[in-house]
Amino acid sequence: MKEIGFIGLGRMGGNLALHAVDEGFSVVGKARSRKPELEEMGVRVVGDYPSFVKGLHPPRVVYLSLPAGPTIDQVLEELVPYLKDGDVVMDGGNSLYLDSIRREETLRRSGIYFLDCGTSGGTGGARHGACFMVGGRREGIAVAEPVLKALAVEEGYVHTGVPGSGHYVKMIHNAVEYGMMQAIAEGFDLLANGSLKGLNLRDVAHVWNHGSIVASFLMAMAEKALEKDPALAALQPFVDDSGEGRWAVKEALDHSVPFVANAYALNSRFASRDKDSMAHRMLAALRKEFGEHPVKKK
Amino acid sequence: MKEIGFIGLGRMGGNLALHAVDEGFSVVGKARSRKPELEEMGVRVVGDYPSFVKGLHPPRVVYLSLPAGPTIDQVLEELVPYLKDGDVVMDGGNSLYLDSIRREETLRRSGIYFLDCGTSGGTGGARHGACFMVGGRREGIAVAEPVLKALAVEEGYVHTGVPGSGHYVKMIHNAVEYGMMQAIAEGFDLLANGSLKGLNLRDVAHVWNHGSIVASFLMAMAEKALEKDPALAALQPFVDDSGEGRWAVKEALDHSVPFVANAYALNSRFASRDKDSMAHRMLAALRKEFGEHPVKKK
Ligand SMILES: NC(=O)c1ccc[n+]([C@@H]2O[C@H](COP(=O)([O-])OP(=O)(O)OC[C@H]3O[C@@H](n4cnc5c(N)ncnc54)[C@H](OP(=O)(O)O)[C@@H]3O)[C@@H](O)[C@H]2O)c1
Ligand SMILES: NC(=O)c1ccc[n+]([C@@H]2O[C@H](COP(=O)([O-])OP(=O)(O)OC[C@H]3O[C@@H](n4cnc5c(N)ncnc54)[C@H](OP(=O)(O)O)[C@@H]3O)[C@@H](O)[C@H]2O)c1
Repeated sequence: MKEIGFIGLGRMGGNLALHAVDEGFSVVGKARSRKPELEEMGVRVVGDYPSFVKGLHPPRVVYLSLPAGPTIDQVLEELVPYLKDGDVVMDGGNSLYLDSIRREETLRRSGIYFLDCGTSGGTGGARHGACFMVGGRREGIAVAEPVLKALAVEEGYVHTGVPGSGHYVKMIHNAVEYGMMQAIAEGFDLLANGSLKGLNLRDVAHVWNHGSIVASFLMAMAEKALEKDPALAALQPFVDDSGEGRWAVKEALDHSVPFVANAYALNSRFASRDKDSMAHRMLAALRKEFGEHPVKKK
Repeated sequence: MKEIGFIGLGRMGGNLALHAVDEGFSVVGKARSRKPELEEMGVRVVGDYPSFVKGLHPPRVVYLSLPAGPTIDQVLEELVPYLKDGDVVMDGGNSLYLDSIRREETLRRSGIYFLDCGTSGGTGGARHGACFMVGGRREGIAVAEPVLKALAVEEGYVHTGVPGSGHYVKMIHNAVEYGMMQAIAEGFDLLANGSLKGLNLRDVAHVWNHGSIVASFLMAMAEKALEKDPALAALQPFVDDSGEGRWAVKEALDHSVPFVANAYALNSRFASRDKDSMAHRMLAALRKEFGEHPVKKK
């Protein structure tokens, strides 16, 4: 009997749960609110841990799809008392790998295998085939592997090694993602604002996705966005980040690894949020002080 | 009768010629030396322009696959006298778009259509399906389009617009390529030199190519390189560049377009070639002067 439990049925968890249903799994989800859309499509949604655990046969495979940070510790504290020796809990969120190492040590003492399951591919991947980079002990991996292989695209699963290594690799993945996004974004800025006016950006993205060196999942997303809005005119130039890019930059600093492009990609996002940049006011002030260059007053 | 002529049968031109043979074209190539490997596979190789032109029926389609710069002007000067009104010459190399605008104006006066045919996809693309971004007048495009579509991957051809626009888009393509490469390269540096030792870089690249956000042609190339040499131990850390990245950085400067990641990617290549960096000697000297920090003497 193929079974899997999800805790957290948000954008990723909900789509992975539907994917698991499609793959013939019996799927139980624990959420804090009802999810009629998911229940209609075959996910059994419960609101408490005893019913959640009762809905799965040991050795259980539980996938957490939750915000990184204290939520994970809190949910584990509530969940673990109901689990049994040999059950497997995977954290599919973007947790800091050091937290995952610590959690693995704690859960191991209760006889539970904890896997850190770096998950990529976005919501579309969750729904139709994800990418998993998973750290943890071989015994836990052995239990979870058939589930992970079923939810991944072909070849889109790897056991990265020791506990923590899945989230470690995912952390670096996200930093590379930021850098690649920045490279693409700067290219379209120049296409839009360079000497040649009137280039069709959507056509450029389209051809770049067909046989070129820059063809990529991200370029496909660029094409999709430009199809909907040819100059991205409806968007504010404001870019958020989740935590992983920052951790990777800190990790690079700790190991003196040059990481300029990827760190800059992150810094560019910070700058995008600051409409009253102190740095730019200081630059203007300095030019005025030493050269009497004109400034713009508020 | 499907016909095409190539001038320059090097890595790109030779592979495109073989591809054209596969697609059922009658293919004539002009080269300065014999190419038995190509001739065996159906390319008719000639050594002079009269035979080259005689081997094609008007309106002719000629693809130049030559080093950018004065070679193109020289070859055009030798070739054009033999061409006829309505023939099409495409420059498939990485020429500066301003040169292509100038060449188009010159050739138009002789009744020849000149197309600037930015070509991507590397030698594998040339052999099995390339990506073409092509600038030039509609009349010339109409003649060349069937040939370009036959040699491109499905959807891998676009008419970018006015003369010069194909090489302009290709120039920015290459700058984006540099930035994406740099993002990937920094990620693998951190994977190899961060806290977690012994990660299998080839496995990481492999899983990143299956369902992840960073999946891309370039990540596939990274995987291929790591398959051959798991730590790239046989390579010197020396990175060359062809001209296009530089032109794109200059273009961004001319238009005050922030282009930091892509410009940095280029600068990182410069730094890779400088084993006795003046900047690094000066940094060491400054630290010694103001703080008596130790330096390493030659
Ligand atoms: N979105 C992406 O593209 C993506 C890709 C890869 C990884 N991730 C990572 O995957 C994880 C989930 O992301 P998501 O995009 O699916 O986020 P989301 O849509 O916000 O879903 C998170 C879910 O967590 C539950 N939750 C939040 N706070 C909770 C708490 N205190 N206690 C119990 N449950 C709580 C909520 O479920 P209920 O309210 O239904 O109980 C919510 O639906 C995050 O770590 C994220 O960084 C996201
Ligand atoms: N390699 C790539 O991945 C790639 C990708 C996209 C675009 N490009 C661009 O495509 C063009 C060709 O690149 P490639 O990699 O094929 O270079 P290549 O292997 O060096 O081939 C260039 C050919 O040009 C001919 N040639 C050189 N100097 C000449 C001269 N003075 N007069 C006449 N013919 C001359 C040579 O042909 P013969 O000696 O046989 O006559 C040579 O085989 C370049 O502009 C390059 O930047 C390359």
